[in-house]
Amino acid sequence: MKAEILSIGTELLLGQITDTNAAWLAQQLPDFGVDLYYISQVGDNRQRLTETLRRALSRSDLVICTGGLGPTEDDLTREAISDLLGEPMEVHPDLEKALRGYFGGRGIEMPERNLKQATLIQSAQALDNPVGTAPGWWVENQGRVIVCMPGVPHEMKTMWQNQAVPRLSERTSGGFILSRTLKILGKGESAVEEMVEDYIHSNNPTLATYAKNDGIHLRITAKADDEATARDLVFELEIKLRERLGTLIYGQDDETLEGVIGTMLQDNSLFLGVMEAGTGGVLSALLNDAPQSPAFFRGGLVSQQPEMLAAWGVDPALIEEHSILSKEVVEAMATAARQSLGTEAGLAVCAAPRADTFKGKPAGQIFMAVDLRGTVKSAELSYRSNPSEIKRLGTIFGLNLLRRALLK
Amino acid sequence: MKAEILSIGTELLLGQITDTNAAWLAQQLPDFGVDLYYISQVGDNRQRLTETLRRALSRSDLVICTGGLGPTEDDLTREAISDLLGEPMEVHPDLEKALRGYFGGRGIEMPERNLKQATLIQSAQALDNPVGTAPGWWVENQGRVIVCMPGVPHEMKTMWQNQAVPRLSERTSGGFILSRTLKILGKGESAVEEMVEDYIHSNNPTLATYAKNDGIHLRITAKADDEATARDLVFELEIKLRERLGTLIYGQDDETLEGVIGTMLQDNSLFLGVMEAGTGGVLSALLNDAPQSPAFFRGGLVSQQPEMLAAWGVDPALIEEHSILSKEVVEAMATAARQSLGTEAGLAVCAAPRADTFKGKPAGQIFMAVDLRGTVKSAELSYRSNPSEIKRLGTIFGLNLLRRALLK
Repeated sequence: MKAEILSIGTELLLGQITDTNAAWLAQQLPDFGVDLYYISQVGDNRQRLTETLRRALSRSDLVICTGGLGPTEDDLTREAISDLLGEPMEVHPDLEKALRGYFGGRGIEMPERNLKQATLIQSAQALDNPVGTAPGWWVENQGRVIVCMPGVPHEMKTMWQNQAVPRLSERTSGGFILSRTLKILGKGESAVEEMVEDYIHSNNPTLATYAKNDGIHLRITAKADDEATARDLVFELEIKLRERLGTLIYGQDDETLEGVIGTMLQDNSLFLGVMEAGTGGVLSALLNDAPQSPAFFRGGLVSQQPEMLAAWGVDPALIEEHSILSKEVVEAMATAARQSLGTEAGLAVCAAPRADTFKGKPAGQIFMAVDLRGTVKSAELSYRSNPSEIKRLGTIFGLNLLRRALLK
Repeated sequence: MKAEILSIGTELLLGQITDTNAAWLAQQLPDFGVDLYYISQVGDNRQRLTETLRRALSRSDLVICTGGLGPTEDDLTREAISDLLGEPMEVHPDLEKALRGYFGGRGIEMPERNLKQATLIQSAQALDNPVGTAPGWWVENQGRVIVCMPGVPHEMKTMWQNQAVPRLSERTSGGFILSRTLKILGKGESAVEEMVEDYIHSNNPTLATYAKNDGIHLRITAKADDEATARDLVFELEIKLRERLGTLIYGQDDETLEGVIGTMLQDNSLFLGVMEAGTGGVLSALLNDAPQSPAFFRGGLVSQQPEMLAAWGVDPALIEEHSILSKEVVEAMATAARQSLGTEAGLAVCAAPRADTFKGKPAGQIFMAVDLRGTVKSAELSYRSNPSEIKRLGTIFGLNLLRRALLK
């Protein structure tokens, strides 16, 4: 099956936004044995959009569109498909009812222009959008498929998983492809690749490394005629990799670092409190993202001002002597977090995202400490990167320090 | 002049990398009065690449290619252009000398496969690459231009600035394009579009609306023969829009909501403390992103557990009576934030990203409150969306409530 992605919106051609949807979708397609040959970005122009859709439909079995489903006159994806197939857009009563309900639930009257979001053409089924106003379209025409989804990434991803994937799985037959991703923290990509070098060139299963936001991902992918064989192939290599990499592996597939830590804390009936200076709330926010967060995360104290840290229990003399960005203060912060929030575990991170975050300290320095029932461990790192990346790194490596302390 | 961008590389079609080059280039083109109509990503396949180049050259005056200039068999941009124009690739002695010099200078013998990086076709000039091995190509054919640059972003950007821009400036005469973006919070996209409907269809300047992460963006774009005229055209419409939209507009162009609020607080010598329940640190993290953050942001208290809110000064009886997710408690939180952090302004947000965040409360409910030197204002909203979006909305609308309080 040959696929093609069209990302629709003039803001893409003006460089106002980067097309992250296409890359995300491109990563999903190999699991269905679908080959992606083209990605295009096209503006909100009815004629050019129709022409691009016509070419895509002539050379691809599956055309995946994102964007252009909003209520405004610039949103022309439906119109272009209607033009291309010569099928008029008609308001669908159920969709209209749902749309009016959506607005009514917010106590707002629906602007009449939104009504076009309740239209379908004859060849289209609606794809439910539980997180926005625009339903998608699933269009079947002469054995080929056009899927239209919103351009807002989280709406697109939800619709893809819940609506497009089941329909697509039905259509792609034969050849079972199975993947497993192992997630690693504590080594860089080249070091991990060297550790598993003998498997990198194998054919089935294949093994690939990716440097990601939350560490290094090792992706095992096997193809077979049936699911059981594919599963065995993946499992055999997974066992070998786990033996070799041990606790460098913190999770697999959909598991997140914060979720894994949440489970460890919850299993041991431990509550966690954090204090962060320089990362500004990013650590607390990530812990709050864990689904079991209410069961282990007590709260966070966020400030990079000495008087606030002192108010929360850090000895001002330590700050005076070593400055905030130091091993001594970050260790005191971990203990203060534990005591002030009344928890068994305390985690603290101090990071300098900019050269002016802490006077006289270089950008990129990161200190982190864990206090687990009074036993304190700390670590230090230094990275050259932009401010938001430094905050993220402080958070990720701080959490990994906590994970390693909990392993013992 | 009509332009088109081709990003070349199979890694783009596998989703292994996101195409940031295209968005960067797209942002550069309006300055030359060049209209960008298409962006495409295509893999390392000689036939598909040649076909895509042929179509691009048939409909665009300027085709900008990135990627596929490396030394390996997968790097096929030169070959495809050679095929398309029927001009053989020939090693150019000066380029060969420079290339061998590049390797020699590093004490490495040049792999023979790199020799193709020293080739040209008859219609091509070489574009110098001071930061890598692959020179670019500037190809002129029947009045149209193909520019080929490396895919590595910093090599591409250097080559664009130093080599492509001077050649392009020579070819594009006159035509100055200027844009201004007004950023709006407090109305949805359709409502804003209805408020400015009479300008949406104007030709020069054009006006377009975009729904963004931080509100609705209104983009004014004018074309003229000279900068002063373009500036006047933009300014004239901007004045009318500002009259009509008033304080719904919070900023323009590169200004951020947190930056605008930071400036308002700093100008009035006010410090801000926040308390957040349910948003988990996202509000603090956004305020910390403001460049002037140390000058106005004292810190954040993050928890959704009643005992912690009580420890930070919220009356436990209020929580007992109304639950955390209520007007009464969020107002008490704003005051407690102000008092506990010792600031003039306190901002509190309570949000339920999930149905289980606060027992018996629906997902999507958001309360926010501001205490400005003892005067308390609050607001309530409800959204249907995913957890991270609800946290973000609580943060953005909480900050907008603070902005409106500071305006008075």
